[in-house]
Amino acid sequence: MGQKIIGIDVGGTKVAGGLVDRKGRLVESQIVPTHADKGFDKSYAQVIHLIGRLLRAAGGKENVGGIGICAPGPLNPKTGVVLNPPNLPGWRNIELAKMVGKEFGLPARLENDANAAGLAEVLFGAAVGYKDVFYVTVSTGVGTGIIINRKIYHGKNGIAGEGGHVSIDYRSPYRCGCGTYGDIEALAAGPGMARRARVMLEQEHNLPSVLRELAHGRAEEISPLMIQQAARQGDRVAKAILDETGFLLGFWLAGMISLFDPEAIVIGGGVSHIGKPLFDKIRSTIPKHTINGFAAQTPVLPAKLRTNVGVYGAAAIFLPAGEEAES
Amino acid sequence: MGQKIIGIDVGGTKVAGGLVDRKGRLVESQIVPTHADKGFDKSYAQVIHLIGRLLRAAGGKENVGGIGICAPGPLNPKTGVVLNPPNLPGWRNIELAKMVGKEFGLPARLENDANAAGLAEVLFGAAVGYKDVFYVTVSTGVGTGIIINRKIYHGKNGIAGEGGHVSIDYRSPYRCGCGTYGDIEALAAGPGMARRARVMLEQEHNLPSVLRELAHGRAEEISPLMIQQAARQGDRVAKAILDETGFLLGFWLAGMISLFDPEAIVIGGGVSHIGKPLFDKIRSTIPKHTINGFAAQTPVLPAKLRTNVGVYGAAAIFLPAGEEAES
Repeated sequence: MGQKIIGIDVGGTKVAGGLVDRKGRLVESQIVPTHADKGFDKSYAQVIHLIGRLLRAAGGKENVGGIGICAPGPLNPKTGVVLNPPNLPGWRNIELAKMVGKEFGLPARLENDANAAGLAEVLFGAAVGYKDVFYVTVSTGVGTGIIINRKIYHGKNGIAGEGGHVSIDYRSPYRCGCGTYGDIEALAAGPGMARRARVMLEQEHNLPSVLRELAHGRAEEISPLMIQQAARQGDRVAKAILDETGFLLGFWLAGMISLFDPEAIVIGGGVSHIGKPLFDKIRSTIPKHTINGFAAQTPVLPAKLRTNVGVYGAAAIFLPAGEEAES
Repeated sequence: MGQKIIGIDVGGTKVAGGLVDRKGRLVESQIVPTHADKGFDKSYAQVIHLIGRLLRAAGGKENVGGIGICAPGPLNPKTGVVLNPPNLPGWRNIELAKMVGKEFGLPARLENDANAAGLAEVLFGAAVGYKDVFYVTVSTGVGTGIIINRKIYHGKNGIAGEGGHVSIDYRSPYRCGCGTYGDIEALAAGPGMARRARVMLEQEHNLPSVLRELAHGRAEEISPLMIQQAARQGDRVAKAILDETGFLLGFWLAGMISLFDPEAIVIGGGVSHIGKPLFDKIRSTIPKHTINGFAAQTPVLPAKLRTNVGVYGAAAIFLPAGEEAES
């Protein structure tokens, strides 16, 4: 089939879109601002505008097999409904897949960010050649996607795969927005990393650290990027925080391996760009904390798709291995 | 098809076997001692002896469609090899499925206890009518089985579904045999319950509890059964231990629901016989500790199959919905 797929990645600040061919090549790519602060009508118009442009770039709708859309959760991929994402104000119970499909007379599907990114890594990225993969994206939150037999596992209500909200510390003082305590998102995502650095510096006033200078003496302004910079300069506090982040992620992933016995784990998102020191610690921690005797041989791969992962992911839900995705 | 399936449940003390028809009815059931202490040859002979008896009861091998065997892990259901179960001394890397199949000229398959029990609950027990189920058995350990689309999820090496070794307390002083700390098996299975009661009584010497009498003053002899008895008599310590067990299991299951968004959870095993006080606490804890907004509506069901669950489970791996199990 010569038809291409339109992939649309709706974010809080921009809507990215592209045309992906059946071989998984991104042959066209465009971006428009979301104007999320102007409410649903305005930001939805931006989505429609972008799809229109991509349809023209494709030479008309007869050359397009479908429109895949990914957006931040909560949403229901089975019904195509966006529930109420915190960073898209005014988007409440929007039947996005149905509306877009009707607007253009083309099949349209909706998927959440992390699931789509995980599928994209399996079809086009770091996990090509694998079928059963546990995907993780660590940035301001921890998103995960469960890919089984090259398909996204959705569960009953379409909201499976929320591994970021699995706790490894039921006695933790840190409560997540989801209600639980000590889940890996609360402990190891960007804000959790920054908090751990802050607590360490506040508890030990005399501990020397370039983080104090980088944050201009204001511990509350420490960011994951500062921690990464400081660690590169050899700062001990920053290195300890990165090391602990790797331990926490590795400990949590050990449990995921006990459950899923996956062929591979893929880790993406901003925090994963820390690279080798983080991955080394994750890889050395995992085998010590799982019953799975093959854990040391389970590849823990850095994600390959970066800026366009959302567009690839949105398109992926329409490509061959995604066709029979559970509904 | 009028053919029946032979189900064999190999345990440390007895081998239970039965004939199950295609409608899931147990039409014949027999038990022989395992003689595990006499080594592999002797206990394997018991398995073969029992299968022979069941074949005769079926009226010959032309009336039997296959032999399903479940055994304690670790084992590999994909290759049919028993690795080295702690309670079957001398069973090391035994190609059990192949050996049994050859012995009788019939197809034979191997599955681990918890997976088989979970599938049996879906096909014949508490979860009939559901496709995607998370099964838990709590006794001296915590075993789990992940059933997706009425099939056991095996993972790459055949050892997926080990949810009992997922930790909810990475800072726990309690180390599990698997190497990790604070997994739900270490915290909430029978020995974990008994340990928590013992610690409570040892730390507070003046705390009154009938558990002291039941254990004849020897805190190290407190058993889960004693805790259950004492709780029925209104004992506060015992009730607190059961309550905490329900909380721990509920907290852990909340994470499983975030991951799997299952249609139902089924809980079996000796500890589950505590019944209502335990299930009430589990059910009230789950929705507070998951991002899944449907968690309060996810049924948490007591297992239905009891004494013969192993035989049903072993047969289940040959019955229709099990036929296409991933390999």
